[in-house]
Amino acid sequence: MPYELHYWPTIQGRGEFVRLALEAAGADYVDIARGREDEGRGIPAMMHFMDSADVLQPPFAPPFLVDGKTIVGQSSAILLYLGPRLGLVDKSETRRLWTHQLQLTIADVVAEAHETHHPVGTGLYYEDQKKEALRRAKEFRTARVKKFLGWFETVLERNPRSGVHLVGNRLSYADLSLFQLVEGLLYAFPKATRRVLKNTPHVTALRDSVARHRRVAAYLASERRIPFNEDGIFRRYPELDG
Amino acid sequence: MPYELHYWPTIQGRGEFVRLALEAAGADYVDIARGREDEGRGIPAMMHFMDSADVLQPPFAPPFLVDGKTIVGQSSAILLYLGPRLGLVDKSETRRLWTHQLQLTIADVVAEAHETHHPVGTGLYYEDQKKEALRRAKEFRTARVKKFLGWFETVLERNPRSGVHLVGNRLSYADLSLFQLVEGLLYAFPKATRRVLKNTPHVTALRDSVARHRRVAAYLASERRIPFNEDGIFRRYPELDG
Repeated sequence: MPYELHYWPTIQGRGEFVRLALEAAGADYVDIARGREDEGRGIPAMMHFMDSADVLQPPFAPPFLVDGKTIVGQSSAILLYLGPRLGLVDKSETRRLWTHQLQLTIADVVAEAHETHHPVGTGLYYEDQKKEALRRAKEFRTARVKKFLGWFETVLERNPRSGVHLVGNRLSYADLSLFQLVEGLLYAFPKATRRVLKNTPHVTALRDSVARHRRVAAYLASERRIPFNEDGIFRRYPELDG
Repeated sequence: MPYELHYWPTIQGRGEFVRLALEAAGADYVDIARGREDEGRGIPAMMHFMDSADVLQPPFAPPFLVDGKTIVGQSSAILLYLGPRLGLVDKSETRRLWTHQLQLTIADVVAEAHETHHPVGTGLYYEDQKKEALRRAKEFRTARVKKFLGWFETVLERNPRSGVHLVGNRLSYADLSLFQLVEGLLYAFPKATRRVLKNTPHVTALRDSVARHRRVAAYLASERRIPFNEDGIFRRYPELDG
């Protein structure tokens, strides 16, 4: 039975971290909310799990994964679940935990990236918080991106096994997620991110290496990869870059 | 060998979720940064793990746990590691994952609570972003707290086993963390939180039940429990409540 990924159908968002793992592993999966309603898919099929009183463990929000009777929400928890099943994490507990810790830190950056265009409220339009966004984005692109990517650079430098993998010498879901984080930052803050990447050669090499991965490259070139847009987490508002 | 908890010594912050788990389980642990420097503890002992080039898996930020050779950062990952060791999570993989998912959602609320007083930047003082904080806090206390605590209420309602535990019929680290979340919200936004809690009787019952737990009650009454203050995540700025 294929994995069911449930996520908003028109954005990469937090679902993309899960999509990348499924795609890189060549897993059999269905992107439910992007399917046709008359085939029992689409957004109603996704909302069922969030709204139905029959679901004992309802996800708080998409993305969530359905695997038979198991429902898992929270992108980092989904990857914790999928990692060993897709061969995208080491077998040792210590390394699994370290991979998860890296993933949680990536999730922190993603949350902060969202805050740059929604500093005073997720329920308000960007246009209604543009002034605040200019302040928030300035700190993010000048201090936070540098600090976070600098930390990942250090992690890569100190990995005794390899320069293009965060954990050991094999591809993990954290590598895929760091790739996606860099892609998102390059989309939203191209000038600021390029400046930081000049000083993080290992992060850049990891990004390039993931982009060349056979299945990932095929996915990125396919229609399954939704382009970045201004409804997602990483949004290109030129006034926020610099 | 006792567990070593490393966290800022003057605030509850994110470290408190780990402290509560260690205390509730009666675990042998040392709160390193609160110790004396002339005994090899204090903040320098904590910073060693973040700054030394010898640490191959450096934590991005406190809190982190040191258990022999294992170093684990990110509060949710620390609890994922400690849960089975402290008997604060079920043995089944499905329930462990669900417990972790609940924890990650609590961490999301904690991050949003922090944003209420620092909406435009963690590097700026509250006084320099007070206007923006007023807007952000309004949405948080009127919409987000209700949505999040409402979801935990639903989770408790749908747990067939018990009304005061999130998972099955036994205490888990997620129960302890939900207790801490409610305490923090009551400290920072007493009026708004009390209004929400009137409609979430299961969440209230869980909070009361954890407060009565023998070891937790002893901890809360001890000097080891740092009082809430305006350097932590949950800050009482009366102008942000309402």
